[in-house]
Amino acid sequence: MIKAGIIGATGYAGGELARLLMAHKETQIIWFGSKSYIGQQYYEVYRNMFEIVDAACLEDNMDKLADEADVIFTATPQGLCASMLNDAILSKTKVIDLSADFRLKDVAVYEKWYGIRHKAPQYIAQAVYGLCEIYREEIRRSRLIANPGCYTTCSILTLYPLVKAGLIDPKTIIIDAKSGVSGAGRGAKVQNLFCEANENCKAYGVAGHRHTPEIEEQLSYAGGCGVTLSFTPHLIPVNRGILVTAYASLQAGPSGMPGKEEIRAAYKAQYGKERFVRILEEGICPETRWVEGSNYVDINFAIDERTGRVIMMGAIDNLVKGAAGQAVQNMNLLFGLRESEGLEAIPLFP
Amino acid sequence: MIKAGIIGATGYAGGELARLLMAHKETQIIWFGSKSYIGQQYYEVYRNMFEIVDAACLEDNMDKLADEADVIFTATPQGLCASMLNDAILSKTKVIDLSADFRLKDVAVYEKWYGIRHKAPQYIAQAVYGLCEIYREEIRRSRLIANPGCYTTCSILTLYPLVKAGLIDPKTIIIDAKSGVSGAGRGAKVQNLFCEANENCKAYGVAGHRHTPEIEEQLSYAGGCGVTLSFTPHLIPVNRGILVTAYASLQAGPSGMPGKEEIRAAYKAQYGKERFVRILEEGICPETRWVEGSNYVDINFAIDERTGRVIMMGAIDNLVKGAAGQAVQNMNLLFGLRESEGLEAIPLFP
Amino acid sequence: MIKAGIIGATGYAGGELARLLMAHKETQIIWFGSKSYIGQQYYEVYRNMFEIVDAACLEDNMDKLADEADVIFTATPQGLCASMLNDAILSKTKVIDLSADFRLKDVAVYEKWYGIRHKAPQYIAQAVYGLCEIYREEIRRSRLIANPGCYTTCSILTLYPLVKAGLIDPKTIIIDAKSGVSGAGRGAKVQNLFCEANENCKAYGVAGHRHTPEIEEQLSYAGGCGVTLSFTPHLIPVNRGILVTAYASLQAGPSGMPGKEEIRAAYKAQYGKERFVRILEEGICPETRWVEGSNYVDINFAIDERTGRVIMMGAIDNLVKGAAGQAVQNMNLLFGLRESEGLEAIPLFP
Amino acid sequence: MIKAGIIGATGYAGGELARLLMAHKETQIIWFGSKSYIGQQYYEVYRNMFEIVDAACLEDNMDKLADEADVIFTATPQGLCASMLNDAILSKTKVIDLSADFRLKDVAVYEKWYGIRHKAPQYIAQAVYGLCEIYREEIRRSRLIANPGCYTTCSILTLYPLVKAGLIDPKTIIIDAKSGVSGAGRGAKVQNLFCEANENCKAYGVAGHRHTPEIEEQLSYAGGCGVTLSFTPHLIPVNRGILVTAYASLQAGPSGMPGKEEIRAAYKAQYGKERFVRILEEGICPETRWVEGSNYVDINFAIDERTGRVIMMGAIDNLVKGAAGQAVQNMNLLFGLRESEGLEAIPLFP
Repeated sequence: MIKAGIIGATGYAGGELARLLMAHKETQIIWFGSKSYIGQQYYEVYRNMFEIVDAACLEDNMDKLADEADVIFTATPQGLCASMLNDAILSKTKVIDLSADFRLKDVAVYEKWYGIRHKAPQYIAQAVYGLCEIYREEIRRSRLIANPGCYTTCSILTLYPLVKAGLIDPKTIIIDAKSGVSGAGRGAKVQNLFCEANENCKAYGVAGHRHTPEIEEQLSYAGGCGVTLSFTPHLIPVNRGILVTAYASLQAGPSGMPGKEEIRAAYKAQYGKERFVRILEEGICPETRWVEGSNYVDINFAIDERTGRVIMMGAIDNLVKGAAGQAVQNMNLLFGLRESEGLEAIPLFP
Repeated sequence: MIKAGIIGATGYAGGELARLLMAHKETQIIWFGSKSYIGQQYYEVYRNMFEIVDAACLEDNMDKLADEADVIFTATPQGLCASMLNDAILSKTKVIDLSADFRLKDVAVYEKWYGIRHKAPQYIAQAVYGLCEIYREEIRRSRLIANPGCYTTCSILTLYPLVKAGLIDPKTIIIDAKSGVSGAGRGAKVQNLFCEANENCKAYGVAGHRHTPEIEEQLSYAGGCGVTLSFTPHLIPVNRGILVTAYASLQAGPSGMPGKEEIRAAYKAQYGKERFVRILEEGICPETRWVEGSNYVDINFAIDERTGRVIMMGAIDNLVKGAAGQAVQNMNLLFGLRESEGLEAIPLFP
Repeated sequence: MIKAGIIGATGYAGGELARLLMAHKETQIIWFGSKSYIGQQYYEVYRNMFEIVDAACLEDNMDKLADEADVIFTATPQGLCASMLNDAILSKTKVIDLSADFRLKDVAVYEKWYGIRHKAPQYIAQAVYGLCEIYREEIRRSRLIANPGCYTTCSILTLYPLVKAGLIDPKTIIIDAKSGVSGAGRGAKVQNLFCEANENCKAYGVAGHRHTPEIEEQLSYAGGCGVTLSFTPHLIPVNRGILVTAYASLQAGPSGMPGKEEIRAAYKAQYGKERFVRILEEGICPETRWVEGSNYVDINFAIDERTGRVIMMGAIDNLVKGAAGQAVQNMNLLFGLRESEGLEAIPLFP
Repeated sequence: MIKAGIIGATGYAGGELARLLMAHKETQIIWFGSKSYIGQQYYEVYRNMFEIVDAACLEDNMDKLADEADVIFTATPQGLCASMLNDAILSKTKVIDLSADFRLKDVAVYEKWYGIRHKAPQYIAQAVYGLCEIYREEIRRSRLIANPGCYTTCSILTLYPLVKAGLIDPKTIIIDAKSGVSGAGRGAKVQNLFCEANENCKAYGVAGHRHTPEIEEQLSYAGGCGVTLSFTPHLIPVNRGILVTAYASLQAGPSGMPGKEEIRAAYKAQYGKERFVRILEEGICPETRWVEGSNYVDINFAIDERTGRVIMMGAIDNLVKGAAGQAVQNMNLLFGLRESEGLEAIPLFP
C-alpha cells in the first residue's frame, strides 16, 4: 500500500483527493493535514466521510510527513509548497503539488503573475508539469509533480493538438472559460455566498488571470513558438465543472485550409488511445454534466466557414481532472500503477 | 457474471441503474430496454455513457429478456411490470420491480391509490418488499422483489425503529418530505422545466400522495397495529436528494417517557450493524449533500421537550438508496453476493 | 416627503428596504447606515444601485439620525436596536425595528431564547407588533414598531384564522418551514457558501429556533390560550422565499368537525379584504415563485380526512413581506399613507 | 389609456409583457392571446397574476384584435406574425413584433437562417429595428417595430460604439454569450427540464445560431462595412440573464492605437444620456444579477495590452431589455410617452 499524506486536506480539492484516495485500492491516507481544523475529526469537516474516515486533522507539517509518506499531495494556496519543500523531503518521498508553485518554468513569470517571491526556484527545473496526456513519460521518472490548474488542464487539452499540428494560427487564440464555484475554494468570502453566486454570471480577472501564462507556456511548447493569447474566466452557478470555448483562425498548410477531417485527425492522433479524453461525435457539444464526478475530458470542435475560424470546446470536472483526479493519475504514473486506478467512476447524472 | 436486463433503462432511475451496474464487478448488462429510444445507441440518450456503454436500446420485451437474463430490473411506470409478468418469466429469471406494482399487499389499496386495475394480483403474495435493512432474509429467498419508492425508503427507515420499539404514538405521525426534481422523472412536462422548478418550493399531492399507504403498511407491521399518518411531499430545486422530517409524540413506556438515550438505543439496536445506515452524532442534522451519489441513509432525531415530541430526520439520494442503489442491494442479496458490492461509492461533495 | 434612515442598510434586508424606499413616491432615504462600509458609495456595496443611489454609507448612529429622519428602520442583529434606543430618539422620530428586540412582550422569554440581556425593556410595552393584517389600528397609533420575522410572518398569517376561530386544536400544531438562503444574511460564513447550500436541503435549529416563541405568543393571543408548538426551519437552495407547511388536528365545534367550507370561511373572514393576502383556489398549493419580489402572502389548506388533520400552507418572499416590504407597509400605516404605497410590484416570474 | 393586446401572452416573453403592462400607468391590456390556453383564466397559466389579472385567454386572432387595440405585441414563434399581418391591421393599429420576422432587411438572409419562407416580405422595408438607443427617431415615426432578440440586444449594444468609432477591427469580432434558460421558452422539452439544465453549462448552435445575421447587419450599419463575426451562445443554469463577452483587436487610428480613455469616450458619446445603459466604473465587470428584473444594460471593457485586444462585456435581463422591456420602451416611443414609463423597476437582488 502506498502511504499518502495530504497537506491542505480540508479545502475542496483536498476533500476530493480524500474521496478519491479512500476509494483507491493501492493507497492508504496516513495524514489529513489542515491549517484550520487541527485536532478535529476529518468527518466533522466533511460529513460525507462519517463512518468512512476515522482520523483527526493533523498540522500541515511537510517535514514530519515526509518521514512517513510515500507521496505527499499539497492542496494549498500558492507559495506554501515552495516555502516548505527541501532536499530532505524530496529524498524521502514524492511530491505532487496542486498549487501553481512549480508549473511555470520561468520564475520571473511566476513572480510577476502571482505577485509573490518564489521560495524554492531551485526545484523548478526538476519539476514535471503533470498533464498526464502530454508528459506521461517524464512524470514516470519524476519526484516532483506540478499538477496543472483547472482552467489550464481544460484549456490546454482542448487546444494542444491543433496548435501542435499547426492547424490554427497561435496569434488568434481566444479562450472563454466558464467555471463552477468550487474553483473559488472553501474560504468564507461574501462574493462566494450562495445568494451572490446563484442566479448570476460574470467574468473576472479579465486580461489578467493567473492561469494565462501557464496555458501560454504549454501551448508554446506544442507550437514550437511563443504563444500569447486572451483568456477570460467566468463564474457560473454550478458546484463543479469547467467549460472552455476556444476560438482561433484556421491556418493554411501545404494542402490548403484544414477541413473538419484534418482537425478531427489531429485530435485522434493525440488522444486516440487516451483513457480519459473523449473526442465527441460530430455535432455534439461538450457539456459539464456529462463528465461530473469523473476524470474525463470531453472535447469537440466546429468549423465556422464564414469566418475561417474553428471553435474548440472542452469540458471537465474541475475538482477531478482539474485537480484531485489528475493528481491521482499522476500518482499512478509515479508508482507504476494502472493509470486509471481509482479513477474509473462513471460520470454522475443528473 | 450475472446477466442483467433493464426494462425502462432511459428514465432517470434506469440511467442510475445502468451507471451502478456498469461499475458492478459481478454483473453484465445485456439489455437496455426503452420504449422511446429503440435502436438508438444508449450513449446518445445519456452522454455520460459515451465510450462506456456500446449498446443500442432494445424494446421493453420482458418475455424475450427472460430467456437471456439472470435478473430483470423494471424501472417503468406503475402497471407496466404487472401487465408483463407471467409464470414463465418468473420460472426463468428473477425480477426486481422498481415500480409500485407489488409493494402493497392489499390489491384494493393499490387500485384505490393508483387508480388502475392490478393486472397480476396473483404474484403479490410471493413478492418481497425490498427494503434490505428490514427484510434481508426474505429477500434472499425470493424471486420477485418490490423495490420501495424513494419517499417511502427514507420515511420508513427514519421511523421504523421508534414505531417498532413503541417509543412514539403511531396516531401522531406526520411526515414532511422534500425531494429533488429527478424524482419526477425525465418526462417533458412544463412543471418540471428548469424555469418552473428553479428558485421555487411547493408542496404537492397534499393529503393524497400515493406513497402514503406504502409507508403506513410497513409501519403497521413495525408497530403491530394499523398506522394512519399524514405525508406531505415537497419539490425543492436540487437534482438529487430526499430529506424527511417526521414528527410524533413520545409515548410513555413502563419506565416513563423515553429520553434521548432510549431513542438512540432503539436506532442503534435496529441499524447498529447496517452498512448503509448512519446514525449521526447528537446535534447533527442529516443533509442531502452528505449522501449524494451514495447508498447511505443518514438519520438523526431531536427531542422537543416543550411539546413532548420527537423530530426524526432522514436523508437519502433518491436515485440511489431511493431507487437504483437499493435495487442493486436487493440483487446482491438475491444472488448471494456481498451486500455492498457495487455500492461503495463515497458521497460526492460538493 | 418622509425622510427615512436605514441603520444596517448593507445587509440583505437593508438592501431590500433601500430598493423599496427608492421606488416609494412619498419617501426619501437620507441615511444609508452601515457598520462595515462607512464612507463607501452605497452602489459599491449593491451594484444594482449604480446610477440610482448616489450616497455614501454613514455610520450606524441612531441619535444623530433621529435629528434628521421622520422614520428610522433598524435592519440590524438582535440587541443593537435595544442598545441604541432612548427617549430622545422616540420623541423625535418613529422607529421600525426589523430585529427581534421588541417582538416578545415577556422580556424573560426574549433573554432565554436569544441568550442576551435586553438593553431596553422599558420600551417593550409601547412597541406594537408590526403584523399589519392583525394590528393595523395599533400600528397607526404607535411610534415603535417591532417588525415581525420572516418565518413568523408566514407562520402566523397561515395559522391565525384557524386558531382564532377555534377550528384546530392548538396543542397539535406543527410548523415545518423552508427558507431561501437570503434569510441567513450576508455574513461571510462557510455554511452559506454557494457550494455548501446549493444542491442541498437540511433542517436546523430543530426544537430550538428563536422564532418559535414569537409564533407561539401571537397564536396564543389569537386562540385566547397558551399555545406551545413545534417549529422546524429548513434551508433550501433558493435566494428568496419561505414556504410554511403547518399541521394541526381539526377540532370539533358545536356543529361537529369543521369541513372545508368552514375553514375557507374563517380565512375569508380574516383576510377577505386584505390587499396582500391571497387565499388560493381549492386544490392550488402556494409556491414561493408566485410571490417572489412582492409583498403577497399566498395561503391555502387541504383537509386530510383520514387523519382528521388540516394541512395549512403559506408562501412569502422572506425579504419583502418577511422583512422590508412589511416594514414599508408599517411605515405607510404610521404616516397615514395608502397601505400599499410602494408595494405594488407584481411577483416576478420566472 | 392605450389599449394593448398580446398575441402569445402565455410564453415567458408574453408573461413578462403582461407583468410590465399591468404596472404601466398609460396602458390597459385588453387581450391575452394564446394558442394553448384559450378560455382559461390567465392567472391559471401564471399564478403570480392571481387577483391581479381577471381575464380569460383569447385566441391569437390578430385581425379581430386590430379592431380593438391601439397596439399589438406579438410574442410568438418565427413566422407567425408575418403570416397574420396585412394592410388592414397596419392601418388600424401599431404592431410590435417580438419575433424575428421583420428584423433582417434582406429576405434571403432570413429565409436561409430561419429555414422558412417569409410570408410578408412587403412589410420589411417599413419595419423599424426596435433598438431604442440606436433608432429612437425612426421608431417614433413607425407603425411596425421589429423588436430585437435577446442575444442581439446585448451583443449589439455592447459592440456598437466601438465599431462605429472605428476603434476595433470588425473582422476580428468574436462574441461569446451566456444565457439563462428562460430564453429557451416555456415549451416542454427534455433538454430544458430542471435536471438537464441545472448544474450544467454547454454551448449550442455553434457557428450557426440564428441571431448571428441580425448582429452582423446592425454592426455593419455601425461600421459602414460588411461585418462577419463569430457568435457562440451558451446555456447556463439561471432563470434570467444574458452575459456577452466580446473580443476584438484594437485598430489604430490617426493618433495610434486607442487607449482606455478613447474607448470609454466612445461608449460615453453613444450612451452618455441613455436612461437604460450604464457604463460601469473602470475595473467593474457586468454581472447579470445587477440588472435582473430591470431594463438596464450594464457595459464595460478591459484592454488586453499583451494581445492588443479589447474585451467588451454586457449584461441584460433577457426577458426585460432582451424582450418585453424593450417592447414597452418601443411602445412608449411610438405613443409619445416618457421613454422609461413602466420600466423604472430597480434591479432585484438577491
